Amino acid sequence: MRYRRVPDETIRRLPKYLRALLLLMDRGQKTVSSVALADLMGGNPGRVRKDFSYFGGFGKRGFGYDVETLAGEIRKILRLNVVNKAALVGVGNLGRAILAFPSLKKYGFEIVAAFDNDPKKIGEKAGGIVIEHISQICDLEQRGVYVGIIAVPRQAAQQTADDLLEAGVRGIVKFSQGYITVPKRVKVITIDIAMDFARLPYYMPRSPSRAAAFRRTGSL
Amino acid sequence: MRYRRVPDETIRRLPKYLRALLLLMDRGQKTVSSVALADLMGGNPGRVRKDFSYFGGFGKRGFGYDVETLAGEIRKILRLNVVNKAALVGVGNLGRAILAFPSLKKYGFEIVAAFDNDPKKIGEKAGGIVIEHISQICDLEQRGVYVGIIAVPRQAAQQTADDLLEAGVRGIVKFSQGYITVPKRVKVITIDIAMDFARLPYYMPRSPSRAAAFRRTGSL
Repeated sequence: MRYRRVPDETIRRLPKYLRALLLLMDRGQKTVSSVALADLMGGNPGRVRKDFSYFGGFGKRGFGYDVETLAGEIRKILRLNVVNKAALVGVGNLGRAILAFPSLKKYGFEIVAAFDNDPKKIGEKAGGIVIEHISQICDLEQRGVYVGIIAVPRQAAQQTADDLLEAGVRGIVKFSQGYITVPKRVKVITIDIAMDFARLPYYMPRSPSRAAAFRRTGSL
Repeated sequence: MRYRRVPDETIRRLPKYLRALLLLMDRGQKTVSSVALADLMGGNPGRVRKDFSYFGGFGKRGFGYDVETLAGEIRKILRLNVVNKAALVGVGNLGRAILAFPSLKKYGFEIVAAFDNDPKKIGEKAGGIVIEHISQICDLEQRGVYVGIIAVPRQAAQQTADDLLEAGVRGIVKFSQGYITVPKRVKVITIDIAMDFARLPYYMPRSPSRAAAFRRTGSL
């Protein structure tokens, strides 16, 4: 089921809810209030309730949300309840780090193929996967791979995107810098790690933080 | 100057505006309309104007925004107009990838120290920086380092955060999974790369995308 007219902002927060819920499940917690969930997320309880209202609620007044049920529903909405097979292109340091992320599996992703253009790397194993030459990328659709991950240098990003799409990929996660063009139906998620740093200094205290060390707060 | 009562959502978008503006500057574009900027960002023009209204506008009706001025103002607001020196802990694949990010500099960050606990790595150079033993982390404040980057395994994240804060760090970018607690004044930005993947399947077409290949759209 595709839920219509859900704001992108809400869709953007759903993975964060899921992350918080997985943490609570790790801790063995069975239910959670919108207040506690908002606190974990750094938002407000009203927004939590509003976000979930697009999908019919989930909560019982006074009882909060059932952690496991809610996590399952979010997985369903985000289509993470099936395994999403992915192919990685570019097995440099970042590519190797991505192949080793234990949490990709938690979100339903499985990298099943890795490509590079460096002859020295071909045949080598990284994260349990044999690295193939980029020329072997053609049959991803037949392998059930619909997600492409681009971790190549900036100047190779467009060609890599073209190759992935030609091979049957329907969505792309791009780590490379720069602008690429893709067919309108193809979703590209750009992960610009440096950009995520950029909002940190705004929140940094001007004076040393150790003075406040006695008041501690959690961070997911 | 600290701008008060700016919603976190707006602060969260400022780096994205900056990224779009840097792209426009690369292309030699001098001015940009709120419509064009919204298009690059994947938002709507009203929100662009609203976001900038918290800082007094910047735009001239009918002329749009001056790209370079706007980028400069956003840098000032986010305090990226000074160099923010950072220390990285954990020089694995991800750590090495972070050290090599060319775009960190674009946002005003400079990694000046890297630490690991693996004796084999100490003294080795990564991204032009000599890797030091984690026990050398004590004097970051004296070195003018206020940003800490955690790229260690999950189970070492809390200890690393404690060490960084003890050494004088005021803000943390955390790549490790899991929950850490820090003093209330310390901002922690968690970059959970796997989580960013999680909103992709929702947007992926069910049928092959190649049929729509003739309509192309840009993606930053």
